[in-house]
Formats: sequence, structure tokens, C-alpha cells
Amino acid sequence: MSVIPRPLVPQRLAESRSVPSPPASGGIDSLEGLLAQEFARRWPENTAGLDAVHRYALLPSGKLLRPHLLARSALAVGGSLDAVLPAAVGFEATHTGSLLHDDIIDQDAVRRGRPAVHTAFGPEMAIVAGNALFFTWFAALAECAANGIPHGRIVAAMEIQAAAGQQICRGVALELSLVGNLEASPETYLDMARAKTAVLFEAACSVGAVLGGGEERQVAAFGAFGDHLGCAFQIRDDLLPYRKDVRGVGKPADSDLRNRRPTLPVLLAHRDGTPAQRAVLRDCMTPGLEQREAFGRLAGVLHATGALEKAEHNAQYHVEQALRALAQIPPGAHRDALLALASDGSPVARSA
Amino acid sequence: MSVIPRPLVPQRLAESRSVPSPPASGGIDSLEGLLAQEFARRWPENTAGLDAVHRYALLPSGKLLRPHLLARSALAVGGSLDAVLPAAVGFEATHTGSLLHDDIIDQDAVRRGRPAVHTAFGPEMAIVAGNALFFTWFAALAECAANGIPHGRIVAAMEIQAAAGQQICRGVALELSLVGNLEASPETYLDMARAKTAVLFEAACSVGAVLGGGEERQVAAFGAFGDHLGCAFQIRDDLLPYRKDVRGVGKPADSDLRNRRPTLPVLLAHRDGTPAQRAVLRDCMTPGLEQREAFGRLAGVLHATGALEKAEHNAQYHVEQALRALAQIPPGAHRDALLALASDGSPVARSA
Repeated sequence: MSVIPRPLVPQRLAESRSVPSPPASGGIDSLEGLLAQEFARRWPENTAGLDAVHRYALLPSGKLLRPHLLARSALAVGGSLDAVLPAAVGFEATHTGSLLHDDIIDQDAVRRGRPAVHTAFGPEMAIVAGNALFFTWFAALAECAANGIPHGRIVAAMEIQAAAGQQICRGVALELSLVGNLEASPETYLDMARAKTAVLFEAACSVGAVLGGGEERQVAAFGAFGDHLGCAFQIRDDLLPYRKDVRGVGKPADSDLRNRRPTLPVLLAHRDGTPAQRAVLRDCMTPGLEQREAFGRLAGVLHATGALEKAEHNAQYHVEQALRALAQIPPGAHRDALLALASDGSPVARSA
Repeated sequence: MSVIPRPLVPQRLAESRSVPSPPASGGIDSLEGLLAQEFARRWPENTAGLDAVHRYALLPSGKLLRPHLLARSALAVGGSLDAVLPAAVGFEATHTGSLLHDDIIDQDAVRRGRPAVHTAFGPEMAIVAGNALFFTWFAALAECAANGIPHGRIVAAMEIQAAAGQQICRGVALELSLVGNLEASPETYLDMARAKTAVLFEAACSVGAVLGGGEERQVAAFGAFGDHLGCAFQIRDDLLPYRKDVRGVGKPADSDLRNRRPTLPVLLAHRDGTPAQRAVLRDCMTPGLEQREAFGRLAGVLHATGALEKAEHNAQYHVEQALRALAQIPPGAHRDALLALASDGSPVARSA
């Protein structure tokens, strides 16, 4: 898949940067460092029970994309990082909680090169540990009140989080209902991807803007940015197994196929393929075929039909829409950081 | 177990009732009717996906004990039922969500005489449907803001709910860690029962008092009431399998034994039994023995050691403490209703 071009920052936006972008290892790194430090502080070593499970799941921390989005959104509208830091942590907690459950549902035994939580601690503990992290999301938000964030903003943020949580569950349920269904439309897939993944990106940006004191118009712009960024992210995450350069990163490459999940390129290939190509797709999605062989044949059809490129173009469309949304918020270093995040075409490092 | 006396309302408190208690089919019934109506409205027939799963899990509604506690607590401090009704619904939602997961963890295929949700819809869907109900808890609380409840109270309620949710998970994790451990102390069991069950009763009462505008002192009294009521409830719930009059109600009678869960009477029997009786308990808690035979032998030891009566006395102690806490809140019909709830010794009808 190295033929697929990285999306470019639209020239218009790149030119409109009002301040120099932060040095490559400047602002962003320090925010990442601060976030990572906060996770290590909250989930210390030598704990037992659920705390130990949570530490295993949360540390060492990955790219902390969702906390990053929240913090940058809050800062971009003039909010204080210290005040919103707990809410940022909460987003990583709930994201991790959903990964714990996803790995049970998908029977993925490995995550980030280590035994998944349900493999290491048992599925019962993984269910409970995931649940606890969902509640941590709201407990962390409540801490922002003690940090001086007005109650009205906290309630607005709670409403966004609760609605996002419900939407994510609808997305996962929709995904379950699509198992093995090659006749599903690409639009249905995108609805599912939006609910399952993009909604949490959208919520991280919206909650950041709300807690930071952004105006309604700004909150909507941050939400649109997160939504489109999340759609691009999910599409590219589903494309990872077909990229030779990054195999072994994120979830097991055969997870979607083994779980008979019709991802966007598969649905596009089925829509646009010849009867013979469709038959191959059907064969590959039927239980029984040896996994490596099935994967090879499936990948062949995805390449031959141009479905991988089409899916990547869709991801690029969402990146462009995300950048367009950013144009509506105050220019500055934080907007530049979000822009850089969206412009970095690879979701690989963020798959954790 | 019909030899065990129903706990009596302490004379002192019964005499202090300042208003006549509501007619037996008066206030309480209309509140129950209102709550049941609200559930039917929110989860209508002929829906699909998660909504259909939620309807199956939530309707027909049981005794709605937790919503009842919240509503009565709010009313007792002068709150409005209409304003807090969504929060009351939210408590039943999250309770039901935890039952969905408990049934997966305990591999209980039946709930209230019907296939459990994971039996009817699959464990994947039961995990996701449970999660969605946790988020509904907070979405419903947010609705109370639109009903005119001040933001400061909503934030305080969110903090209580989030902490309670985390505690419940700790309780379930502790329960998992106690599997097969007959050496655990009765105190450890009570810690677990408090976290797993009583915390949600406590939260329902506290949130009701907070949203209703109660003073800090009153909120604490309602919390103590809910805590003790919940402890009594959990102890009695664990005693149900040994009551000949109510078998077949609630969870399967062999669930705790099959899952090697040391409940209070089992731990008391082990603590107080002879070496021979302990050996029987160990045998019964070892996988391999035929379930019906194991249950019969276990019940024999629980009877012979007086452990069932001791556990029931502990439950009665908690009922008395609950009633004592009620003495600190304003007398009236709503306090009377809570008092009647606690005085009704049987948790049977509330097991749902």
C-alpha cells in the first residue's frame, strides 16, 4: 500500500497559519510528556486488583490521541491545561475500556504485541475492568469542577460523553449485526465507523472546547473536526492489515477476516467487482477456509478492484473535511498542532 | 428457612411517624405505576438493535427498587418527582446493565424465568447492551438539568454515580478473587457485598437527596440508609437458595455454588463448623461433585451450624441500622414509605 499517497495539507490552510508551528519536538512533545506522566501518577506500580489490571491496560501509554485532542481543543479556545487534564485522562480511560471489550468480542488474544487483558487476566476480569474505566471517564470529568471549571460546562460535557458512550455501543452493535454481510452498503459501514470510532474523537474535541470555554460555534467546529478525523482514522485502521510496511502493529492482521467483518475496502470490492471477484470475497468470508490463504486471496481482490485506493481516497476526503473545520477556529499554535495531527496520514502509531 | 423471623420495625421509630402511613395501595402504588409507565414509554415495542435488547432486559419492569429509593429520597427533602424522574430511570438502567454482565460472568442462562440476555442475544451483544445502559445512567442524569435541577446538584450527583460505578466494579473484581476461598473472613464478604450491591442503593438515596435539594447532613443520612438496606438485601439474596418457599425466584439456586462463591452463610459455617463440617464444605465447593448432591450436603451443614440464622441476624442488624438512619430525616409519607420498604423483610420480589 506504499503506493497510496499521504494526504496533503490543503495549501489554503497551510498558508493561513498565523503563528509559526511549534518546533517538531516542542509544544506537542511536552504535552505528550505531561499526559504520560499523569497516567503513571494515577496508575502507580505495585498495585493489586483492578488497579493492576488498569495499569497493565493503560501503561506504557501509547500516543494518547484522544487526550491530546481534548487538551489542544481546550487550549485553542483559551482554556487551562491544568483544569482540563483530568477530563483528558478520562477519554483515554474510556477508550481503553472499550478496547478491553472489543478484544473479548473479537477474540483477539494479542494487543500491541502483548497478551490482551482478557488473555492475561481472564474475560470476566476484562469485562469488569472495562466497565470501571467507563465510570472513570465521568469521575475524571467531575474532578474538573474542583479545578474551577464552571458547573454548567461540566454538565454540558457530561451530556456529550454520555451520548457518545451510547453511540459507541450502537456502533459496536451495528458492527455485530453486519457480520458476514457483503451486501451491506459502504454507507452503512461508514455509519458504523462513525458511531464506533469517530464519535469519541468528536466528543474529545467538543468536550475540550466546552470545558475550555469555547463559543457554541467553535464547539461545533471542533466537533466536526474530530468527527472527520475519526472517520479517516477508522478507515485507515481497517486498511492496516493490507499495508506491508506496518504489519504486526495494532490488532492481529486477520482479526477482521476471522470475525467476518466487512470493512470498507471489502464492501467496495464487492460492490465494484466482477461476479468472479465477488465469489472469491464470499469464499474468503465463509468460515472454514485456512486463514492465511483466505487473507491472501482477499487481499488480491482488494488490490485488483482498486478497493484499497478507493477506501484511502475516502479517508483523504475526511482528512480534508477535518482541516476545513479547523479553519473556523482561532489560529495559533494549538490549531497548528491539530492540523499537524490530521495531516499526518498514518494512523499506525495511534493504533494503541 | 421459614423459621427466620421477619425483622420488625423498631418500636421507637414506628411511634415517631408524624403522619399516617399511606394506604397500602396508595402513594407507593402510584409511584410504581408512574415508574413502570416511564420505562414503557422510553423503551417502546417494535424497536430493533440495542433498543430491542434493552426492552427485553428492562421490561416488564420488576419492583424498580432503586428508582423507588431515589424518588422517595428526593421527595422526602422537598424535591419534585417530575424533575428527578429521569435520574430514577437511570438507576434501573445501570443496575440492569450490571445484571447483564453478571449473568455472563456467572454463566447463568436464566433470569426471572426467561433466557438471560446473553442466552437470547449472545454474549457479545449482552456486553455491549450492558455498557450502553451504564452510559444511559449519565444521559438520564443530564436530562434533569433540562428539568430545572441546578447544575451544581447535577455535578454532585454525577460524582456520586461515577464513584459508585467504580466501587461496584471493585466489588465484582473482589468477588472474582474470592472464588473457592473458604478461608475468607465474613468481614471480607461484607466488604464485597457492600461494594457490589449496597453502594448502588446508597447512591440512589444520596442522588435523590442531592437532586431534591437536601442538606449535606440529610444526604449523609439517606446514604447510610441505602448502604445498610443494600447490605441486608445482598445477604438475603444470597440466602434465597436455602429458602424452600421461594425457590425458582431470581438467579438459579445453584449459581453461587456452581461458581464457587463463598457467601456469608458458607463462610460463617466454615468459621464455626467442626473439622468434619469444614471438610464437607470443601468437598461441596470443589468442582466435580454432582450439583444437586453438593447443594443438599452444603445446605445440611449450613442448617446444622446455625449459619443461615446467623447470616439472617446480620441482615436484620443492617435493617435496624437503616431504620436508625431514617430517624435523622424529615418525618412524613415519603420517610414512611422508605421505612415500610426496609421493614418488609423479604427481598424476593426485589430480586429482579
